[in-house]
Amino acid sequence: MTSPVGLHRVLAPAGVLPQAAERLDARPEIGVDEVRIAVERLNLDAASFRQLSEKHGGDGDAVRAEVLEIVGRRGKMHNPVTGSGGMLIGTVDEVGPESPLGLKPGDRVATLVSLTLTPLRIAATTWDGRGEQVPCTGHAILFARSVAAVLPADLDPRLALAVLDVCGAPALTARVVRGLEGGAPHGGPRVAVLGAAGKSGSLSLAAARDAGAAGTTGVVRDEAEAALLRGAGLADRVVVADARDPVAVAAAVGEPADVTVVCVDVPGCEHGAILATAAGGTVIFFSMATSFAAAALGAEGLAADVTMLVGNGYVPGHAGYALDLVRKVSAVRELFEGRLSA
Amino acid sequence: MTSPVGLHRVLAPAGVLPQAAERLDARPEIGVDEVRIAVERLNLDAASFRQLSEKHGGDGDAVRAEVLEIVGRRGKMHNPVTGSGGMLIGTVDEVGPESPLGLKPGDRVATLVSLTLTPLRIAATTWDGRGEQVPCTGHAILFARSVAAVLPADLDPRLALAVLDVCGAPALTARVVRGLEGGAPHGGPRVAVLGAAGKSGSLSLAAARDAGAAGTTGVVRDEAEAALLRGAGLADRVVVADARDPVAVAAAVGEPADVTVVCVDVPGCEHGAILATAAGGTVIFFSMATSFAAAALGAEGLAADVTMLVGNGYVPGHAGYALDLVRKVSAVRELFEGRLSA
Repeated sequence: MTSPVGLHRVLAPAGVLPQAAERLDARPEIGVDEVRIAVERLNLDAASFRQLSEKHGGDGDAVRAEVLEIVGRRGKMHNPVTGSGGMLIGTVDEVGPESPLGLKPGDRVATLVSLTLTPLRIAATTWDGRGEQVPCTGHAILFARSVAAVLPADLDPRLALAVLDVCGAPALTARVVRGLEGGAPHGGPRVAVLGAAGKSGSLSLAAARDAGAAGTTGVVRDEAEAALLRGAGLADRVVVADARDPVAVAAAVGEPADVTVVCVDVPGCEHGAILATAAGGTVIFFSMATSFAAAALGAEGLAADVTMLVGNGYVPGHAGYALDLVRKVSAVRELFEGRLSA
Repeated sequence: MTSPVGLHRVLAPAGVLPQAAERLDARPEIGVDEVRIAVERLNLDAASFRQLSEKHGGDGDAVRAEVLEIVGRRGKMHNPVTGSGGMLIGTVDEVGPESPLGLKPGDRVATLVSLTLTPLRIAATTWDGRGEQVPCTGHAILFARSVAAVLPADLDPRLALAVLDVCGAPALTARVVRGLEGGAPHGGPRVAVLGAAGKSGSLSLAAARDAGAAGTTGVVRDEAEAALLRGAGLADRVVVADARDPVAVAAAVGEPADVTVVCVDVPGCEHGAILATAAGGTVIFFSMATSFAAAALGAEGLAADVTMLVGNGYVPGHAGYALDLVRKVSAVRELFEGRLSA
């Protein structure tokens, strides 16, 4: 019996989900609804690689040895200190007859669920331990409820990976904006994006416009980012404010937004987002630095009647939607390509 | 110059809102739009009291000392570990001529904004450190944009305080259920409440039924609570599961819920709530022990297309709605009274 969420692969402790497990069973034989990937490259989470590199004083051999030790022991690349994993790319090797993922052998894919819950064995690697990208051979297992995207033939794989890494944000932004379209008093919702020049921010701006926003405001941290975003033309207005300063954010946004999207990866941005949002509006938090308590108590303390969403990284169709935005909106593509070559 | 959100009372760090502040100025002299309350009793947030009590192994004297130390140092009751506060009850002492709150000296009130943003000094207390209710004297300050409710004459003030403390939960639950009513395939949404025998849990159950839920399931931690909740008749089904065990929660709930309400004040309940919720459904997190990252990454890792709401403690009309539920639904009132006398 296989479980769609991979419970049958959990070795210890009993009863937890794969992400919470200490050890997974990474045997290559697949269940009827599983998929085996021939791994080509891991993309370690930035926080995980930094921790390992600092621990070993930049000694690449020691970093490589520890990654191999973790994967060998845990059956997954799950950094025990940072709790984070990363993603991988590879080629579909075998597909169980009852897999619902729609993959076929030979598809080149990126996994969109974390390495912290993906059974993995590494056979060999040429990695020097000095960067987040780990070229290697081996295999990984996808469950029925895993998510993987076929890499598009028309986009540079590095660009595609960078887009897929944040593809939940534009999909959820578009869904919220579409839900409000027509219901808002001014034809469509006004949308403000904090951290608008970054990866998830620029995609969210493009998604808001695509979904029918009546006006978009991009909030960025300095004039350099403002110039970049103005040049891209992705927002109707671009303003500069420190996202951690609630009063400054609200003043910069001006007329409150119907939807505020938080894409700034630093702590302390909850209150500015709430203050910048109209009564009855929605705040979507995508930053992993968001504090649940700060958001909940902040809205209460401001007597702010706003709907606050935890930015779920999974929305059906998210990968295809994000890649299509990059194809359709050349300014988004150029922003991403600029970051990749920086 | 006073600020409606209390910026003028922030001592450190500069520029943040009172809730994010490390220290507030709790001087008794009020500004033109402020109100001073003579404090009678604090009601500590459940997660905060639990953390303090566990830290000190149930030593009430040590718990009391730490609460007094926090309030003395920070100028507010803001637990630095849980990030949560609570609320207070008292009598209006002085009202600034420009206060918009509609209060007058002598009104007996409960504050509906968190203690984490309320300037507070404690003069003396008879508290034994063994419960969430802290009888004390001292003063607190309300800003122009604070929220306070005059205590109803027909309810025991301790009952009213306990109800008002969690009044955001039933109001938001009702709003979400009403928003889905008719849209759900089975007439009204199926609602599951984790921590259903507690204060916010029992009120949320009553609110879900009041708002048109097609079926309600109460999830509780043991048979004693199950017997209590079955006796109250607040839920169509009562099941026992450890809310931290995702597989057990999902199995106990059975047919996935359209709306899952999390009222369990312990960490680690995010994945169970997500697993117990149907695709397209909504999870409302009211517990201050909720981890933003665990919710966001958990849903992504499970490829769960669920809307996740940060439980905003402020919904217009929340105080009156919760008090009316207690008046209308005698079982809720009895559960609360049972807890108060326990």
